[in-house]
Amino acid sequence: MATTRLRDVAERAGVSVRTVSNVVNGYARVAEETRRRVEEAVAELGYHPNLLARNLKRGRTGLIALVVPELDVPYFAELARSVVGEARQRGYTVVIDQTDGEPDRERELIMHGASAALFDGVILSPLALSQADLAHRDAAGPLVLLGERIAASPYDHVAIDNVSAAAAATEHLLALGRTRVAAIGDQPYDTGETAQLRTRGYRMAHEARGLSVDPSLTVATPRFHRQEGAAAMARLLDHPDGPPDAVFCYNDLLALGAIRTLLTRGVRVPEDIAVVGFDDIEAGRYNTPTLTTISPDKAMIARLAVERLALRLDGPPAGEPAELWASYTLEVRESSGG
Amino acid sequence: MATTRLRDVAERAGVSVRTVSNVVNGYARVAEETRRRVEEAVAELGYHPNLLARNLKRGRTGLIALVVPELDVPYFAELARSVVGEARQRGYTVVIDQTDGEPDRERELIMHGASAALFDGVILSPLALSQADLAHRDAAGPLVLLGERIAASPYDHVAIDNVSAAAAATEHLLALGRTRVAAIGDQPYDTGETAQLRTRGYRMAHEARGLSVDPSLTVATPRFHRQEGAAAMARLLDHPDGPPDAVFCYNDLLALGAIRTLLTRGVRVPEDIAVVGFDDIEAGRYNTPTLTTISPDKAMIARLAVERLALRLDGPPAGEPAELWASYTLEVRESSGG
Repeated sequence: MATTRLRDVAERAGVSVRTVSNVVNGYARVAEETRRRVEEAVAELGYHPNLLARNLKRGRTGLIALVVPELDVPYFAELARSVVGEARQRGYTVVIDQTDGEPDRERELIMHGASAALFDGVILSPLALSQADLAHRDAAGPLVLLGERIAASPYDHVAIDNVSAAAAATEHLLALGRTRVAAIGDQPYDTGETAQLRTRGYRMAHEARGLSVDPSLTVATPRFHRQEGAAAMARLLDHPDGPPDAVFCYNDLLALGAIRTLLTRGVRVPEDIAVVGFDDIEAGRYNTPTLTTISPDKAMIARLAVERLALRLDGPPAGEPAELWASYTLEVRESSGG
Repeated sequence: MATTRLRDVAERAGVSVRTVSNVVNGYARVAEETRRRVEEAVAELGYHPNLLARNLKRGRTGLIALVVPELDVPYFAELARSVVGEARQRGYTVVIDQTDGEPDRERELIMHGASAALFDGVILSPLALSQADLAHRDAAGPLVLLGERIAASPYDHVAIDNVSAAAAATEHLLALGRTRVAAIGDQPYDTGETAQLRTRGYRMAHEARGLSVDPSLTVATPRFHRQEGAAAMARLLDHPDGPPDAVFCYNDLLALGAIRTLLTRGVRVPEDIAVVGFDDIEAGRYNTPTLTTISPDKAMIARLAVERLALRLDGPPAGEPAELWASYTLEVRESSGG
């Protein structure tokens, strides 16, 4: 079987071999249109960079670690699919580890020790690691962080603007005329920076309309699973001032759990209580009612993260750590009467 | 911070250091009760075998690869969580790769090349590899197969009895008095051995009651996602002889997609059409209606697979390849009127 080579790809895409190499290796500054032409040619011809040879020459394993808290949270599984696809196009194999958010696990995997040395680079969605932990990292390979745990970190990171996304979700509910909008998913700062940002957006949307926030309508949850959403919704239904008329949940699993509680208790969604989630996982699109949600551009998050890692691995010196922002949209569906 | 050692675990469990070592290393023939005592002590004391030292001595990486077709199919994500947990107790780090069922990816990862050498062993849930492929594997480490693609393979494998499980799901629907039970998820033999076994069980349940099967009520689907289930259900609703009164779907995602189609079209579940799935993923337990399903014992599958791998890696010569069977139950919920 003939193997596809760099020059076959160049010929098909109508560009130089050097340009193909730049694209495949993730070097910066290839025009978007050119990059797309090359990637199409790569896909059509089934080109795979000769990993083994390339890696042996460079003392590399060709492996990237993607470290996420929980794979059975579908957001991470869907993100993982995108990262695996992006990395494959660049000739990297992604292996995935879930840490359950245990700091020891996260440290062990990405910072020190035997396993860290096996990976050329790491993409980490941290749950438990602190800035201080990251400052003591002694593994050599580059690290790209997903999410916001970042302020003064020496690493590249990719995130969406959680504050404005949460504000958009809340404003959608307020614009429907709902007057008691609850929030499910708040967490204390030390373990839940993402949750904190979403609470800030929830409050901002109220303030922008001159409305005050009733703190008793914000329910904290230890995790972001269906079970916690179902329990939090049950508490809100028994609120001494009566139930809310809308609820913004900090992820789709919480929202799906909340909807189950509502339907079981005979509450109509969205007529009595409108529900909005966050993540746009497949389960929300097939639920009855379908789930209104914030949809982060997972493909863009994956592309930015892998591109950045490739740049650090293979490119010229890449300068200061970058903050890269992915986009999001509000997808209005049946659960808010869209 | 003092490190927990083997002898601390032995003391807590009231057994010898050698017994603890046998359990931690997965050697065979430790009484179930003893194993549980040791595992409890391991968990209580937070004991982690000194991976690095142990691996350096043995020329090992301490890494196990779990290779699955698709992580965004929740069954695999939930199974992955169990495998990671089981392996961690034995001091192994699991990295996960998804192949999208591409034969090239499966081959590359587990059979040959640079990446295969990084893993001490592999647990593979194959979608595309054939017996012939496996026969040509030249990587050194042990391999445990999940699922049924097995007949004459030289590897250990762990599975549930898909034929009897599918028969139980179908018999449940027939016992409710349903007379036109459809099946969604059949696949041709070369890519869908699991599907073939479930079709056999579906037919067996009919035969056991002296009923004939209407082949036009069996709908094949290329994959096992919600989208395919929704589309297949739409076709069945438009069946020339009228819709079925029950449907057995070969996984929960197909069933959840089918239910979405039914509710959108104003069909009542289970009153008009009862639905049963397969896998017992979390999404089915929070769906409205909740989903009746076959629940394979995922924890048992994970434990059997990791134990077997550990036995091959660390134990005395383990003899012939084993067929290990995990149990399953039928969980009756709202979608079949339970």
